[in-house]
Amino acid sequence: MDSVNKNRERPVGMFDSGVGGLTVAREVMRNLPNENIVYFGDTARVPYGGKSKETILRYSRQIVRFLQQQDVKAIVVACNTASAFALEEIRHELDIPMIGVVKPGAKTACEATRNGRIGVIGTKGTIASGLYTEFIRKLRPDVQVIGKACPLFVPLAEEGMLKDPVTVEMAGRYLAELKEQDIDTLILGCTHYPLLRSVIREVMGEHVTLVNPAYETACSLRKLLEKTGLQSDANPGLQKGRHRFFVSDAPESFREFANSILPVDIEHTQRINIEEF
Amino acid sequence: MDSVNKNRERPVGMFDSGVGGLTVAREVMRNLPNENIVYFGDTARVPYGGKSKETILRYSRQIVRFLQQQDVKAIVVACNTASAFALEEIRHELDIPMIGVVKPGAKTACEATRNGRIGVIGTKGTIASGLYTEFIRKLRPDVQVIGKACPLFVPLAEEGMLKDPVTVEMAGRYLAELKEQDIDTLILGCTHYPLLRSVIREVMGEHVTLVNPAYETACSLRKLLEKTGLQSDANPGLQKGRHRFFVSDAPESFREFANSILPVDIEHTQRINIEEF
Repeated sequence: MDSVNKNRERPVGMFDSGVGGLTVAREVMRNLPNENIVYFGDTARVPYGGKSKETILRYSRQIVRFLQQQDVKAIVVACNTASAFALEEIRHELDIPMIGVVKPGAKTACEATRNGRIGVIGTKGTIASGLYTEFIRKLRPDVQVIGKACPLFVPLAEEGMLKDPVTVEMAGRYLAELKEQDIDTLILGCTHYPLLRSVIREVMGEHVTLVNPAYETACSLRKLLEKTGLQSDANPGLQKGRHRFFVSDAPESFREFANSILPVDIEHTQRINIEEF
Repeated sequence: MDSVNKNRERPVGMFDSGVGGLTVAREVMRNLPNENIVYFGDTARVPYGGKSKETILRYSRQIVRFLQQQDVKAIVVACNTASAFALEEIRHELDIPMIGVVKPGAKTACEATRNGRIGVIGTKGTIASGLYTEFIRKLRPDVQVIGKACPLFVPLAEEGMLKDPVTVEMAGRYLAELKEQDIDTLILGCTHYPLLRSVIREVMGEHVTLVNPAYETACSLRKLLEKTGLQSDANPGLQKGRHRFFVSDAPESFREFANSILPVDIEHTQRINIEEF
């Protein structure tokens, strides 16, 4: 194996404030099955939404230093808040490529809308920051963006209440306003929300396009790796332990949640002291 | 004013991982109206439940150093996790008294139960740690303690859904097991839960004694201050700005929540960098 190939077989680094980014890892596993992942979940300092830009930048820089020690070839910021607050600044400090979840989701929504009315749902932090609106308006200033915070969706998803009547009730309340506003495209602007996709689909109806930034990010990652000649050629088949998971606290409950949503069982999750990085 | 009186007029320090401990502050304001409070909410590092003992000890020591700089005469640990993990170790390092929320709640429940069957509800972290069980068994080894985690109660309380049908539905599910187990006393073992008291009361029925550790802690604080001669003699009336609030992140949303539950409006919440202490 020459050095170019060795370079290609390095893992993809990925991080989120906790378990939410696992929906992005899931899409990468499904759509880029040759790639190995090193995932870091900042479970000691979750949630990021609501924290200041300075704090998010400091946390993200620590995690990037850790991922670089793991010799990753690219970094996916699988967290809306860190994508919005830290990506642009940190990418210029690195010699490996870095992508986030916000831009791919915003781009796809702009291409999908027919009536120019796009809805965005997310945490209070994401919606208050207006980060999707900003990205969308850069691409298409003519589009109207209607944001709606759905604060109970994350705990409902983490409790595994994915099709529960309580989740249906809350989705009905949260999404009523977006339906009234006649949106034709809805961005699932929080990494947890794809887990609630079937309830959201039921409430919104078939005529609304649901944009899953986790999937769009996996597609962006594929294009990026192809463009830079970094895509893996290996065919790992069902080889175990290819993906590695690290957290800043509570590895057991992380592993339990990961195994409930990922296409492969993870056997090992290691806790590290992220504040040392 | 002589030095003894000056000493008495120093504020009471109080801390929690976030907004939950405000229910303790509320009880102190109601029951000890002469006392001034300095409250610290560790909103940058919330939640504490699920974090390791070493982490909680480190966080608590930082906060105690900050409160001592504010010249407090006593410290109330208004957080279940920190009360369990940090109180005993840190109190021996201080020359001012320190109390927590777990012991007062456990003691009252032991006195209240007639059939020796006590229920405890709390976050996953609190229930998994078995901290209330341990305190209760020390006081009354004959008592049976049945714990139940209610993970959605905190987000429901923080969303202000205090009497919402969804909250009633979730309370019905969470509490069914405790009703079947025939408990006669229920400890609201999370600082947020007193906000859901009326729904919990409705589900459990009138024959079950609800123990609110926030109220019991205020009573303990009164006894402590009287015993040590530190109770304030001042009659502040409706004087503004007597209580001071500090957080480690997002002061605006803290203030909004505080004003929704406290008997007085707070005008000012200051953000500090707790990691410098």
